[in-house]
Amino acid sequence: MDRRSFLKNSALGGGAAAAATLAAPAYAQGKRTLTMVTTWGRGLAGVHDSAQYCADAITAMSDGQLTVDLKAAGELVGAFEVFDAVSAGQADLYHGVDYYFLGQHPALSFFSQVPFGMTAQEFNNWFYHEGGRELADEVYGIFGLKFFPAGSTGPQSGGWFNKEINSPEDFQGLKFRMPGQGGQVVGKLGASVQNLPGSEVYQALSSGAIDGTEWIGPWADEKAGFQEVAKFYYTAGFHEPGPILNITFNLELYEDLTPAQQAIVSHAARSSNAWTMALFMANNAAALQRLQAGGVKLMEFSDSIWDAFGAASDEVVKEPLGDELYKRCYDSYMTSLRSSASWGSLSEGTYTAQRNRVVGI
Amino acid sequence: MDRRSFLKNSALGGGAAAAATLAAPAYAQGKRTLTMVTTWGRGLAGVHDSAQYCADAITAMSDGQLTVDLKAAGELVGAFEVFDAVSAGQADLYHGVDYYFLGQHPALSFFSQVPFGMTAQEFNNWFYHEGGRELADEVYGIFGLKFFPAGSTGPQSGGWFNKEINSPEDFQGLKFRMPGQGGQVVGKLGASVQNLPGSEVYQALSSGAIDGTEWIGPWADEKAGFQEVAKFYYTAGFHEPGPILNITFNLELYEDLTPAQQAIVSHAARSSNAWTMALFMANNAAALQRLQAGGVKLMEFSDSIWDAFGAASDEVVKEPLGDELYKRCYDSYMTSLRSSASWGSLSEGTYTAQRNRVVGI
Repeated sequence: MDRRSFLKNSALGGGAAAAATLAAPAYAQGKRTLTMVTTWGRGLAGVHDSAQYCADAITAMSDGQLTVDLKAAGELVGAFEVFDAVSAGQADLYHGVDYYFLGQHPALSFFSQVPFGMTAQEFNNWFYHEGGRELADEVYGIFGLKFFPAGSTGPQSGGWFNKEINSPEDFQGLKFRMPGQGGQVVGKLGASVQNLPGSEVYQALSSGAIDGTEWIGPWADEKAGFQEVAKFYYTAGFHEPGPILNITFNLELYEDLTPAQQAIVSHAARSSNAWTMALFMANNAAALQRLQAGGVKLMEFSDSIWDAFGAASDEVVKEPLGDELYKRCYDSYMTSLRSSASWGSLSEGTYTAQRNRVVGI
Repeated sequence: MDRRSFLKNSALGGGAAAAATLAAPAYAQGKRTLTMVTTWGRGLAGVHDSAQYCADAITAMSDGQLTVDLKAAGELVGAFEVFDAVSAGQADLYHGVDYYFLGQHPALSFFSQVPFGMTAQEFNNWFYHEGGRELADEVYGIFGLKFFPAGSTGPQSGGWFNKEINSPEDFQGLKFRMPGQGGQVVGKLGASVQNLPGSEVYQALSSGAIDGTEWIGPWADEKAGFQEVAKFYYTAGFHEPGPILNITFNLELYEDLTPAQQAIVSHAARSSNAWTMALFMANNAAALQRLQAGGVKLMEFSDSIWDAFGAASDEVVKEPLGDELYKRCYDSYMTSLRSSASWGSLSEGTYTAQRNRVVGI
């Protein structure tokens, strides 16, 4: 609470500072350069592309009024400093995924990823049409921020293992790399959870320092080379079924934009939402074929393992329910999830299962 | 071919006429009003909303440079005249779904709906990242048009029946309302296919003039009142798993827009892509709960019926393969579909099936 109050105050101070740095002549001409920081290293497949897409969309549509200058992780602030930096007005917006910032507020999970939670489509249903956006304004408003969903990686893979995982007990003592709430879940199953930065994972898996890792999906996993050092690839995972990438603005700066510029920001994010998800799905699909052709064994967790993932996820997700705002987000999110999932299962779920069966996919 | 040549010529002529109607002073100030016609009656749930969303997005982002004036079906031209009207430059753009215009070119099915084809997400993967856009430019270019996907209704329901459908033979002699290629497919199964306008379907079903109908999905179906006159609701269908709504511009007009205005058009359509699909999914889910609570019996076709749908769809979709451009679209579409569907099944398909099983959805 103290930390949040501090951040709120610093955000207000930062907003004023940001306004002061707008050179009057440039503003009079209506031209601004906006600094976007990101949680991604420059060039990181898909996620950096999504950030660049958002920056370019805003720049192109505003016809010289707004120019978005993308600073990748480490170029202005570190990957995990972007939330504070934009809250404080040191940067104007960030592109990232906010499960990195659950220490700021646990409800950020609903706007990034809940284990055993919504897919990207289910999130869109909730966010645009069933109350999610209003709750995001409330949560991010605490920090002087304005949040826009801007795409998803699609469902992340269950991960790479150097042995078959046949029962929940196989996680006992397993040295597994998985960050965030997903890591808490496998920790409950007895795994020794490692939280290595991406650059160290290949070496750790190769040397046997860890027994397995999740990463993103076939496209990014193949680039990381995990197929060279682990045999078994579980394609579906419980931990990130639809992580939400976002662009998030300093609220005071956003409110100081013209209505047309605000519309450009909102539609740029939504455009990226459609484009980015398709980028990952198309590239994952193509990479999966290459991985299969290269001899990777595609695996699926058994029902008993999914049961264990579900029970442990439920515990992890319910832990912060004492927080009133978290609870309102949880109630709204879960109601929408059940509704969306039911229709999704009876329509698209049935259709794709039958089509794939009939045509042999 | 003759018809296409005629349309191509008339489009070119129309484009020149459209350019001539731009009053020079207004153009010098950079302000234009663009007339959007649609295939939807004013206020038709979801689809008119999507058209209005696109119109408003372009208007808002261009800050007074472009104002899109939406003329619903019948207000300027009829629902099925929009393709010709925009091709000829009588209107600037339309919002619609192009399986209404397969008579213009059979390949328009790949940019609207293929029975047993792509879901909306699979279409996005293909269109944005695997060659679909380039093929669309080629097909629509024949008619002097520029096509942008702008959302989907999500998978359309299998339909309403006054008896259970237990085998493919139950379609023999069944008086069923289903337009387009889907209708051709159930026709191959022996149904007597009726192509009634929407306004007459309720009365026909009520009087027994037809034995069943497909419409859109729970949201629109409930508004039409079909639950009052048919007992059995098959939630999943083969015929429109992800129909693509679009905004399509007169090509010469589009090419005369500034780069910033072209970016606004493209991103408005992509924004609508994300927003519209979520609109239908959220509202369908809520309506399904009301229909269930009201006693509608939710049904699923058997495997043998899906097999019959699949075989007949394959015949219908392959019929125009003698057309060289259709064949190139088909090959590209099918390659992408198989790739996307494989990854989708192994990741999101497995995840949602397991999640729904574990939490009891």
